[in-house]
Amino acid sequence: MITTSQNKQIKQVVKLLKSSRERKKTGLFVIEGLRMFREIPEDRREKVFVSSDFLQEHGEILRDVSFEEVSSQVFREISDTETPQGILSLVRMEQTPISEIIKRDGNSILLLENLQDPGNLGTLIRTGEGAGVCCVIMSKDTVDIYNPKVIRSTMGSIFRVPFCYVEDLAEMVELLKQRFIHVYAAHLDGTDYTEESYDKISAFLIGNEGNGLTDRIAALADKRIRIPMEGRVESLNAAMAGGLLMYEARRQRKGGS
Amino acid sequence: MITTSQNKQIKQVVKLLKSSRERKKTGLFVIEGLRMFREIPEDRREKVFVSSDFLQEHGEILRDVSFEEVSSQVFREISDTETPQGILSLVRMEQTPISEIIKRDGNSILLLENLQDPGNLGTLIRTGEGAGVCCVIMSKDTVDIYNPKVIRSTMGSIFRVPFCYVEDLAEMVELLKQRFIHVYAAHLDGTDYTEESYDKISAFLIGNEGNGLTDRIAALADKRIRIPMEGRVESLNAAMAGGLLMYEARRQRKGGS
Repeated sequence: MITTSQNKQIKQVVKLLKSSRERKKTGLFVIEGLRMFREIPEDRREKVFVSSDFLQEHGEILRDVSFEEVSSQVFREISDTETPQGILSLVRMEQTPISEIIKRDGNSILLLENLQDPGNLGTLIRTGEGAGVCCVIMSKDTVDIYNPKVIRSTMGSIFRVPFCYVEDLAEMVELLKQRFIHVYAAHLDGTDYTEESYDKISAFLIGNEGNGLTDRIAALADKRIRIPMEGRVESLNAAMAGGLLMYEARRQRKGGS
Repeated sequence: MITTSQNKQIKQVVKLLKSSRERKKTGLFVIEGLRMFREIPEDRREKVFVSSDFLQEHGEILRDVSFEEVSSQVFREISDTETPQGILSLVRMEQTPISEIIKRDGNSILLLENLQDPGNLGTLIRTGEGAGVCCVIMSKDTVDIYNPKVIRSTMGSIFRVPFCYVEDLAEMVELLKQRFIHVYAAHLDGTDYTEESYDKISAFLIGNEGNGLTDRIAALADKRIRIPMEGRVESLNAAMAGGLLMYEARRQRKGGS
């Protein structure tokens, strides 16, 4: 049993929770909690840490799992949550290759430019799975999808929605257009999104929370669309905007009223 | 100039930021930042605190405003944000009376039962304004709308969307039904929300993040509706669900494609 937070393995967990650089270096990220543990594909589970309390209460869950016991005191110290459940796993990263990702079937494609809020990214992945997206493609300066807050808000969708980061989002937009995918930019200066037809697969570009899409990327889209807003609202939350677009595409493709 | 966080007024600000009970007792809440400052109705502005740095840089904004100067050091200590802008206001609470609230015009009514996440409530208020809701009505156990995190995520909509807390949400649902408003419960076990008609004003019941609506409240609705989800998503984020319903009602009433 590990009884000190000075333990080498524990120190690595803490680093992986805090540092995007450490995650990139090792190719590992951290998953907390029992619900999320159950979502981890077995072949990507690198290591499991459980608290003594957890072991006592839920030992049977770990029957075929090799794990490391950690004193409940130390577990509380390393956990990223306020009321830790007592189980934490190191998981190997896995991106879907671009060549694969755009072959996937689905109702739409989500393209994110420089999103920074972890909760927004997580919510978009979760909502995207619900709306049946093909994949989520992110510019390289988008917040790290392996950030613990992003992972929590995906509610497990991180293991099910194909995603990748791309060096150059502009290149990606061009690639989609060559494949006759209609690319829409969510923009304050565009036509009402409900007046467009998304019968064929569409891609939706969503920009950074504070600044929206860069002009360079917005200019590449086939069309700009706008979610109309009443009152004096200047913009919607980025996750909300993305969710509304993806579900509108889904509605039209499934033939809602 | 206030130069110590032991100052009586400063101590009250800290209390108002942290304690919902203190806010209720005094009828005051705290608004941080310059953008939000501009949204405050003048007759509800009780007191304004600015840091010395702010005063030097933005003094002209305060021309007709009576304010209290606080040393930048003390300001950093009391601020609820990581990079404080240096302006913080105490504002008087104001609920719209129920008799008023249901007379308002709009595309739909939002009814919230025991929502707990401040970000969700704030996002719903903001999105609600965009979608043109008549009002937002909350069960009394819903998170405090004057919580600084809620206020931040409304992006100013807190001053523009009529809202109120009610002792008994069930009674409110009955009242709406008597007024021939169709009440829908967002529920995992319901019909596809896009197959319903929201031509007349509808009310949407959204439940707690973890548990959804209580059976008691769901049973009172005229109908249960469901946002269809693909993949293995078990539920959508509560704010997202509410946003999708409000914008679907808006789309139908404005005659989208």
